[in-house]
Amino acid sequence: MYNAEWDIRVRYGETDRMGYVYYGNYAEYFEVARVEAMRVFGITYKDLEDNGILLPVYEYKVTFLKPAYYDDVLQIKTTIPAMPQASIEFHYQTFNSEGEMVNRAQTTLVFIDKESAKPVKAPEFFLEKLQTHF
Amino acid sequence: MYNAEWDIRVRYGETDRMGYVYYGNYAEYFEVARVEAMRVFGITYKDLEDNGILLPVYEYKVTFLKPAYYDDVLQIKTTIPAMPQASIEFHYQTFNSEGEMVNRAQTTLVFIDKESAKPVKAPEFFLEKLQTHF
Amino acid sequence: MYNAEWDIRVRYGETDRMGYVYYGNYAEYFEVARVEAMRVFGITYKDLEDNGILLPVYEYKVTFLKPAYYDDVLQIKTTIPAMPQASIEFHYQTFNSEGEMVNRAQTTLVFIDKESAKPVKAPEFFLEKLQTHF
Amino acid sequence: MYNAEWDIRVRYGETDRMGYVYYGNYAEYFEVARVEAMRVFGITYKDLEDNGILLPVYEYKVTFLKPAYYDDVLQIKTTIPAMPQASIEFHYQTFNSEGEMVNRAQTTLVFIDKESAKPVKAPEFFLEKLQTHF
Repeated sequence: MYNAEWDIRVRYGETDRMGYVYYGNYAEYFEVARVEAMRVFGITYKDLEDNGILLPVYEYKVTFLKPAYYDDVLQIKTTIPAMPQASIEFHYQTFNSEGEMVNRAQTTLVFIDKESAKPVKAPEFFLEKLQTHF
Repeated sequence: MYNAEWDIRVRYGETDRMGYVYYGNYAEYFEVARVEAMRVFGITYKDLEDNGILLPVYEYKVTFLKPAYYDDVLQIKTTIPAMPQASIEFHYQTFNSEGEMVNRAQTTLVFIDKESAKPVKAPEFFLEKLQTHF
Repeated sequence: MYNAEWDIRVRYGETDRMGYVYYGNYAEYFEVARVEAMRVFGITYKDLEDNGILLPVYEYKVTFLKPAYYDDVLQIKTTIPAMPQASIEFHYQTFNSEGEMVNRAQTTLVFIDKESAKPVKAPEFFLEKLQTHF
Repeated sequence: MYNAEWDIRVRYGETDRMGYVYYGNYAEYFEVARVEAMRVFGITYKDLEDNGILLPVYEYKVTFLKPAYYDDVLQIKTTIPAMPQASIEFHYQTFNSEGEMVNRAQTTLVFIDKESAKPVKAPEFFLEKLQTHF
């Protein structure tokens, strides 16, 4: 199991007229959280993509427990529960500054070869870097 | 069961550097789809909210089957599978112009009284209008 | 001078906690407005790009006169004031359903050859189609 | 003259199919930049708003010089060139990590009393905190 944390401050344009962070904007927060989680164990998502591996989201599920508000600093705890094979799972828990859980989510992403547009196994260099944390 | 359809043309800013519609943007498409589905049976979401009933999303789940591209006209088929009580479910299927399913999703929204910020049952006028379609 | 009109309904996620359309979201509305204005005289922006011509924005200026709100249907009047050479100007006026001007804006876009990444003159087929409206 | 700097890393969803940061997304970057610039001299925009003063954008102008890309860390230099009266001006210069200017922009915002929805002069506490930097 691999864990990482990332803080994101809510921007004005990310709120909606209810005064909450718009539910659609969390997908981008989780993308930032998983990219930063990967950066910590030595993988830059941009490099991955520049080296011909795309990692599009196949499934995304989120449960909203509490609203978040403008200017809140949200802490997102990201977990990779298992070593990836053809796909990789990320779990997320978002907390506000009172330590309350705002939501929990998970995404499944698949490794795709850019040229063939076909699914592939997770590349060796990816597995090697992640393995040291398991 | 209640069904409705809505077309959405993909905007340039909604694509990402993969050339696909960014996965986070579908949440907004589904929001448009369900609002337009409600408008057909006589409920304006804005009126609902102006009358003190908020309808925030509690759960959102989406499975991505195919990418969608800039300028595509996507057809979203929205279904309300059951009469709502304290919450309401919407199911979505998104199709491209070749009739291929791009993704399928579902959201669960809860009726909230704006003043008390407490969950409430679906308002009578809402149920009456929807009932005629069941 | 070439004129076109396009209606856009404000989405929930495009509002902010002030209850207004977030000021940053109008850029996307104007992009939709100019793409649809071009479609009317026979140019699909997607085709342009697929044929190796990019049209990035060089300058964008907007003056906000009134807020717009959730579910408003905004009418955007787009004008191309002059035949383009190396760049093309679009002027926009946004009106709400009461006919009040919400904002006015202008963008200057430059024709760029995708391969060389250099500025080029507006392509002949573009000029020919637009010319008939001048 | 007051100066501040803020770094923003480009998110995946903020790019478009050209591979650039979508031109519409800079408005949000500038909003973050000015909010953080204000935080440094002791004003939280959220507090301002919670105390009944809105600060909507009246004018926004941006000139794009170079594209920015996914995962770039952009540095935004924000300047308040003059003490505000009924309105406040912010100037921005965005630089990439090579020190190249990506764009320059300016916004004019007006102080609005939330209750009366009328323009007002900049509040005293705001002027006092800013004055020490002039």
